[in-house]
Amino acid sequence: MIDFLSESTVYVHNPHLDGMKDDILYHFNLGTSTHNLPAMFGDVKFVCVGGSPWRMKSFIEYIAGELSLEDPKAEYPNICAGTDRYAMYKIGPVLSVSHGMGIPSIAIMLHELIKLLYHARCTDVTIFRIGTSGGLGLEPGTVVVTKQSVDATFLPRLEQVILGNTVVRSTDLDQGLAEELLQCSKDLGQFETVIGNTMCTMDFYEGQARLDGAFCSYTEKDKQDYLTKAYESGVRNIEMESSVFAAMCKLSGLKAAVVCVTLLDRQKGDQLISSHEVLHSYQQRPQILVGHLIKKMLQTSASVAVLDKKTVLQAPTT
Amino acid sequence: MIDFLSESTVYVHNPHLDGMKDDILYHFNLGTSTHNLPAMFGDVKFVCVGGSPWRMKSFIEYIAGELSLEDPKAEYPNICAGTDRYAMYKIGPVLSVSHGMGIPSIAIMLHELIKLLYHARCTDVTIFRIGTSGGLGLEPGTVVVTKQSVDATFLPRLEQVILGNTVVRSTDLDQGLAEELLQCSKDLGQFETVIGNTMCTMDFYEGQARLDGAFCSYTEKDKQDYLTKAYESGVRNIEMESSVFAAMCKLSGLKAAVVCVTLLDRQKGDQLISSHEVLHSYQQRPQILVGHLIKKMLQTSASVAVLDKKTVLQAPTT
Repeated sequence: MIDFLSESTVYVHNPHLDGMKDDILYHFNLGTSTHNLPAMFGDVKFVCVGGSPWRMKSFIEYIAGELSLEDPKAEYPNICAGTDRYAMYKIGPVLSVSHGMGIPSIAIMLHELIKLLYHARCTDVTIFRIGTSGGLGLEPGTVVVTKQSVDATFLPRLEQVILGNTVVRSTDLDQGLAEELLQCSKDLGQFETVIGNTMCTMDFYEGQARLDGAFCSYTEKDKQDYLTKAYESGVRNIEMESSVFAAMCKLSGLKAAVVCVTLLDRQKGDQLISSHEVLHSYQQRPQILVGHLIKKMLQTSASVAVLDKKTVLQAPTT
Repeated sequence: MIDFLSESTVYVHNPHLDGMKDDILYHFNLGTSTHNLPAMFGDVKFVCVGGSPWRMKSFIEYIAGELSLEDPKAEYPNICAGTDRYAMYKIGPVLSVSHGMGIPSIAIMLHELIKLLYHARCTDVTIFRIGTSGGLGLEPGTVVVTKQSVDATFLPRLEQVILGNTVVRSTDLDQGLAEELLQCSKDLGQFETVIGNTMCTMDFYEGQARLDGAFCSYTEKDKQDYLTKAYESGVRNIEMESSVFAAMCKLSGLKAAVVCVTLLDRQKGDQLISSHEVLHSYQQRPQILVGHLIKKMLQTSASVAVLDKKTVLQAPTT
């Protein structure tokens, strides 16, 4: 098990792992004895995760173009093709993984992803969740970069049950990374982006005060009062994965950001009535924003590498 | 909104639905104004749900054969092909739907499924969750039919947060249906089936006391003590969806059962080391059991229908 040797290492907190002969990452259909994880994933510097398998395939195609790594013949095979739990794609230093819907689904994926990055000895990894969400007081299509992920009582915490006892974990995210994403949006000038709190719920209908589920025991006024309280506490959007994403990334040393587009203003309605085309264009915004930042970070690190090389070359003459 | 007119009706508890012009079942890519739900689904009498899209497609192919409804040319199209959130297949009176992993994911699906059955005016619907699980004190491959779904403290309840307040819901399941499934297993004589409590957790690793996650802060002894307590309270298997499935089916009047095969004995290990073939054969057991019961129930109702017809025909002569 790697300790706090460096801030840039992806680490696990599990003394039992070192004693295991093999580690089977069951929901990825990958394992340490069946796959050469360092060879397959050792160069990963960016991981992008999102709910839908299709969207994560579309992201890898998009980023391949952005980074000029695309091959016209490439089909970007699903690395987890042997299972339908998650889908995973890779191009150069970028890994794209689907996580399904809800905290338990993304938590399983993150346990196995963190172990994968650890076994592959990856360093300096930045991870983004790109997703969709309901907005509060924002024009549909606005992108929200999460400042803090809060629970349904607007507190920045994740309650997790371990051996029957409740453990509370911090849901802090990297503020510098959030600011960089905001700057990228200004550079792009294509759509509105804000930094705000994100409420993470366990349910899409009753858990988010929707009036259109199979069950609803509250009134329109109850709903509006709750959403107003959320807005007043700083919440700008609502989704279902950010809290455990933030907690697990923090524990494992992954620099993390949550970037979700709002598909509607929940104070004005519950159902998605925009056309398929409009919704599709909204869903591309988080990937455009994250793609822009990845490109910028790679260009910066390439400049630094060139600079380092020059420094080394010039060193003997100075 | 339908009231308690009959025990056999699928009902919603939401006074707001009647005032809606359309109802968009977003995660199914279906809606009341875009699809004729009564024509598409009005004859559904059995719904079978499970985590994996592939397994639910395999189930519809299997049940088509069992019910002699298969068409050699049929490809069983995915009814929700316009989205990759869930996959849905239908043959005759049987609907097969995937639900992903974890309580939030299955809850979204069930909200939309219950509304679908309501809009389609279905009656006398029985629903089964067929899944995989970790076992306690059972030979791998044993099928567990859930008596009660319990939480991580072994209590038969689901805590759900609505407008920031915690609501507790009952996780009772249909005991008669569970007994019928046990009888079916005896009829088949192909594998062991037991009735027991099922623990439903929010996480696969720390939430189920596994020692092989990215994080683990407890010892092998802590794990064994927790699993022993679970066993002593009546828990025979552990999975991640049964509690909200039980709670939502009870609220909507769906006769429900949870049928999960155990893939390993958690008191002996955490990782799935059986071969792909062995695991595949285990995963078929819940569908064989549920398929047998569906066939039996359809044969019984056909006999009743014939009997009713005879009674009517004979009535004038007696």
